[in-house]
Amino acid sequence: MPRFRADRLEKLTEEIFRKEGAPEEAVKILAGHLVRANLAGLDSHGVIRIPQYIELMRSGTVDGRPFYKIQPDGKYEIEQDDGSTVLANGNWCFGQVTAWKSINLAIERARQHGISSVSSYNTAHIGRLGEYTTYAAEQNMVAIVFCSIGRIVAPFGGIDRKLGTNPLSVGIPTNGDTPFVLDFATSMQAEGKVRNYLISGKQVPLGWIIDQEGKATTNPADLYDGGAILPIGGDSQGYKGYGLSLMIEMLGSLLSRNGFPGLEGHRYGSSGTVMIALDIERFVGLETFKAGVGQLIEDVKSSKKRPGFDEILIPGEPEARITQKRAQEGIEIPQKLFDSIREIAATLDIDAEEYLD
Amino acid sequence: MPRFRADRLEKLTEEIFRKEGAPEEAVKILAGHLVRANLAGLDSHGVIRIPQYIELMRSGTVDGRPFYKIQPDGKYEIEQDDGSTVLANGNWCFGQVTAWKSINLAIERARQHGISSVSSYNTAHIGRLGEYTTYAAEQNMVAIVFCSIGRIVAPFGGIDRKLGTNPLSVGIPTNGDTPFVLDFATSMQAEGKVRNYLISGKQVPLGWIIDQEGKATTNPADLYDGGAILPIGGDSQGYKGYGLSLMIEMLGSLLSRNGFPGLEGHRYGSSGTVMIALDIERFVGLETFKAGVGQLIEDVKSSKKRPGFDEILIPGEPEARITQKRAQEGIEIPQKLFDSIREIAATLDIDAEEYLD
Repeated sequence: MPRFRADRLEKLTEEIFRKEGAPEEAVKILAGHLVRANLAGLDSHGVIRIPQYIELMRSGTVDGRPFYKIQPDGKYEIEQDDGSTVLANGNWCFGQVTAWKSINLAIERARQHGISSVSSYNTAHIGRLGEYTTYAAEQNMVAIVFCSIGRIVAPFGGIDRKLGTNPLSVGIPTNGDTPFVLDFATSMQAEGKVRNYLISGKQVPLGWIIDQEGKATTNPADLYDGGAILPIGGDSQGYKGYGLSLMIEMLGSLLSRNGFPGLEGHRYGSSGTVMIALDIERFVGLETFKAGVGQLIEDVKSSKKRPGFDEILIPGEPEARITQKRAQEGIEIPQKLFDSIREIAATLDIDAEEYLD
Repeated sequence: MPRFRADRLEKLTEEIFRKEGAPEEAVKILAGHLVRANLAGLDSHGVIRIPQYIELMRSGTVDGRPFYKIQPDGKYEIEQDDGSTVLANGNWCFGQVTAWKSINLAIERARQHGISSVSSYNTAHIGRLGEYTTYAAEQNMVAIVFCSIGRIVAPFGGIDRKLGTNPLSVGIPTNGDTPFVLDFATSMQAEGKVRNYLISGKQVPLGWIIDQEGKATTNPADLYDGGAILPIGGDSQGYKGYGLSLMIEMLGSLLSRNGFPGLEGHRYGSSGTVMIALDIERFVGLETFKAGVGQLIEDVKSSKKRPGFDEILIPGEPEARITQKRAQEGIEIPQKLFDSIREIAATLDIDAEEYLD
């Protein structure tokens, strides 16, 4: 498989979006975000998105289906500002750029007011939510980010695709190098994961998806034949995942003014984003907080292990470990993805081969 | 089974706590909370708690095990106040009284600042979280409440009881009479539910609990023989429930200064409570928001149903329906519980029989 050093992959990504016409600030934020996702092992949010974002810039479609046209120089406009609450219009810049500005603003306002909320609409795909909560935790903030996106999940007891995968992320500073970073979809899986099973000809575990009759199935093709993904919790506890997903749909879509599929003005695939930041110092001393978090982590890790487990991990640790590994060993890109990036690069007079390790 | 009209059960509950020495404000808040929980069908948070709270007032124990002594006239003291963020000391008043004051303060501050957070420590058992988020939603606020409590849940991959059942509730106004109210434990079940299976000699569904070796078991007795409750999500997705639970443990225990079992000063069974309120008007017009929520609910409900389901419900609806039913038909109390309430009442020269329907 083609392999890149992280800094070289970032340079290539920058060059592609630069030549496609994106301003320098957006180029840097976007390329950094995508490559950090690959470093963390979250390849579904990494450079695999280059072809999709280029298509969104050129024609406003994904695989030919209408989404929204990315405006690489779309301004981040604050439309309502009450100090601790801000509503912004992303104006269809790259979602990562909009979200990056939102999290920085949320941190700044939480530092002033103790707690803040920044939401945004006209926001393109914001990528990996954990990026923003990790950053906030590194700034000694607690951050909660959620985002309503897409429509592929069935409500509890239902068959139709009425909800998005609606991810949630929470970042909390620790006393170590790795912040606590919770980051997950409120559905059993992201759609991309099911697609990977389909491509590789494998069956998905029972409980992830249902077919068009609402029956549980292990055949990934059933999802694309009128099926849906189930919310977290499965048959017995699915009302909890469904409740979380519906909550994110309501707040992410409506508090942000982004809307949801079916509501006038909504653009399919856009990210209705709400970020909340809390300044720990307003509640308890930062060092006291971090010491407590450290003690809690140590205690949780000291648990006896269940058969098949060597270790108890804290959310954020797996990604931090893969980041360390890939920073040393490089990032491998599937040949098919590399080919498609190389093709796009060629249309911009860039030779992607030159950036390989 | 002994049956009460709701207002009569409330009067009896008031009279018990009044005669036990609680001040009138606390008596009203507490009795209202307990009976509304019974009305909503959440009997585990209703008058079943009377014997427990009386024991906590008299000796600071639960079934003889040291918890904390409820101080019915404990003052709600604001210890840190930065406008939009407030930290309070509950001083071991009934947790429902502390939480009631916190949610009212959170609403008031959100109205002033757009978003607010109120946390509290030295807080006794706060009861049903949905009580506070329902109330906030009725005041046209979005409210998020979570609370770290107890220690009976195993971390993902672990066997030992390292986390509480750590519930989470979110309230959102709708365009109808019933607000959206998400309210659940981040564990597969609350401990009381497993105890009910044990008492009635039934097996629990596989996936709720593990035994002392970490093996999945359906025997509820295994929980009380060194076992633990699993986090939401089971074997494949349990890291999500575990992540939520650990997040609530960190924020609920530490942002509130409540601490957690094992940390100096912590009192077992206390509720480390964090409430966040958002004023919808700062983000989008209230009527626009409610209309959007209404449209979303209608769309979700229109989904085709899976086999075995007649209807798609919105979180909060089941409780609202039971409330309507029990308001008409009365509240039935198991004979054993009635006997124990009658005994306590007798020690206070109250004849509980007089309050029956």
